[in-house]
Amino acid sequence: MKDRENIPKATIERLPLYYRCLDKMDTFEDVDVVSSKDLGGKLDIPSTQVRKDLSYYGEFGRRGVGYNVNELRKSVGKILGVDRIWPAVLVGAGNLGHALVNYKSFSMMGFEITHVFDSDSAKIGNLINGREVVSVNDLGRIVQENNIKLGVIAVPTDDAQAVAEEMVESGIKAIWNFAPTRLRVPEEIEVKNEDLAVGIVSLIYHLSWQEEIEAKGE
Amino acid sequence: MKDRENIPKATIERLPLYYRCLDKMDTFEDVDVVSSKDLGGKLDIPSTQVRKDLSYYGEFGRRGVGYNVNELRKSVGKILGVDRIWPAVLVGAGNLGHALVNYKSFSMMGFEITHVFDSDSAKIGNLINGREVVSVNDLGRIVQENNIKLGVIAVPTDDAQAVAEEMVESGIKAIWNFAPTRLRVPEEIEVKNEDLAVGIVSLIYHLSWQEEIEAKGE
Repeated sequence: MKDRENIPKATIERLPLYYRCLDKMDTFEDVDVVSSKDLGGKLDIPSTQVRKDLSYYGEFGRRGVGYNVNELRKSVGKILGVDRIWPAVLVGAGNLGHALVNYKSFSMMGFEITHVFDSDSAKIGNLINGREVVSVNDLGRIVQENNIKLGVIAVPTDDAQAVAEEMVESGIKAIWNFAPTRLRVPEEIEVKNEDLAVGIVSLIYHLSWQEEIEAKGE
Repeated sequence: MKDRENIPKATIERLPLYYRCLDKMDTFEDVDVVSSKDLGGKLDIPSTQVRKDLSYYGEFGRRGVGYNVNELRKSVGKILGVDRIWPAVLVGAGNLGHALVNYKSFSMMGFEITHVFDSDSAKIGNLINGREVVSVNDLGRIVQENNIKLGVIAVPTDDAQAVAEEMVESGIKAIWNFAPTRLRVPEEIEVKNEDLAVGIVSLIYHLSWQEEIEAKGE
C-alpha cells in the first residue's frame, strides 16, 4: 500500500462512491464479480481511473476476470474505516439537524449520530428518531464518557465557532460543519465544511453562463 | 477575460467564498479596501492564489493598494450570476426540504426556492416558510409558467430519478440533487450532487487513519 499521505484527494473522494456501489451489488443485486469497466460505468468514472484508484491500496481483482464484489466491498470498507460504526454528536436540533439524524444512508457509511444537543430549552427533551435532545451543557461529559471523536455542527452561523471550540475541548477530533462559516480550530482537528450555499453557486454560474451564450446567439 | 471553459474548477469553487467574504465586509464591516493577503487570510487561501483566481476574469484592484471592496463584490457577484435572484423549485417537503427552504444564506447567493412540491397528500397544502406545498403533478405547469431553470431534489433515493426526469421534461436546466444516487439526465443538464454520506466518509477515513497511526505508536 502506498503511503496514505501521497494518495490524491480525488481518489479518496471516489472511494465512498465505489463502496456504495459495491455494497449495493453485494447486498441487493447478488453480483459476484465486476469489471473495472462495469464498476466505472455505473459511476461515470473511466475504467483506467477505477484501476488506478484501487491500485494505491493494493492488488485487487484478476486481470481479464474482474473483482470479487464481496471481497472488494470489504477491502474498500476497511480502507475507508466504515467497517465499523463511528458514533457522532450533533449540535443543533433544527430542521437540518432533524434531516441529518433521519438520513438513511449514513449507517452504511459507518456513521451514526448517537447524541443530539441544543441550547434551546424548548427543544431539549424532544425526541428525534428515538434520540432525546440534550442540553449542550452536557456535551463535554457525554463526548468523554462515550469516547466520541466525531462532531456535527448544524447551528446558526453565529453560534458555530463557540460550538466548535466546545467540541474540541471535549475531545472531538473531526468536525462536520454545516454552518456557512470557516471554523478556527487547532491544526490537528479535521474539519469538513458542508457549505450548502457554495454548492448552488456552481449551478447558478453555469446557468448564467448559458444565458450569456444564448444572448450572444453563439 | 479568459474563456470560461478554460478556467480551473477549483477557481470557480473559490469564487463564492470570495463573494461571501466581500459581501460581509461591504455590508456589515464597512471596509473600503482589502488586499489579496487580507482577503486570502480570512479564507485560508494564499494571496497569490487570490490574485491568480481573480485575474482569470479581468483586472481588479491596484498593485500596492488592494481591491475596492464594493466594486470587487459587484464584479464577482456578476461573474457568479448572483447579482440577480434565480428562482428554484424544490421537490420533497421532508426535513431536508424544510431545512433548505429555511436556509438563510441562499438569497445572498442569488438563489431562492420559490415553489415546493411533494407527492404525499398529507404534506400538500402545508406551509413552509410561507410557501405552500403543492402536488408534484403541478410541477411542469409551474416551472413553465414561471420560466424556472433550477430544480432541487430532496426526495428519497428511489424517487429521485423519476423526479429528475419530470424536471427535465418541464424545462429545468440545472439540478441540485440531495438524494444519494447518480441521476441519468441529458448531457446538457447540469447536475450538482450534494451527497451527504460522501462528506462524512472523508472524516471517517481521516479518523481511522489516525487510530492506525496511534496503534502503531508512530
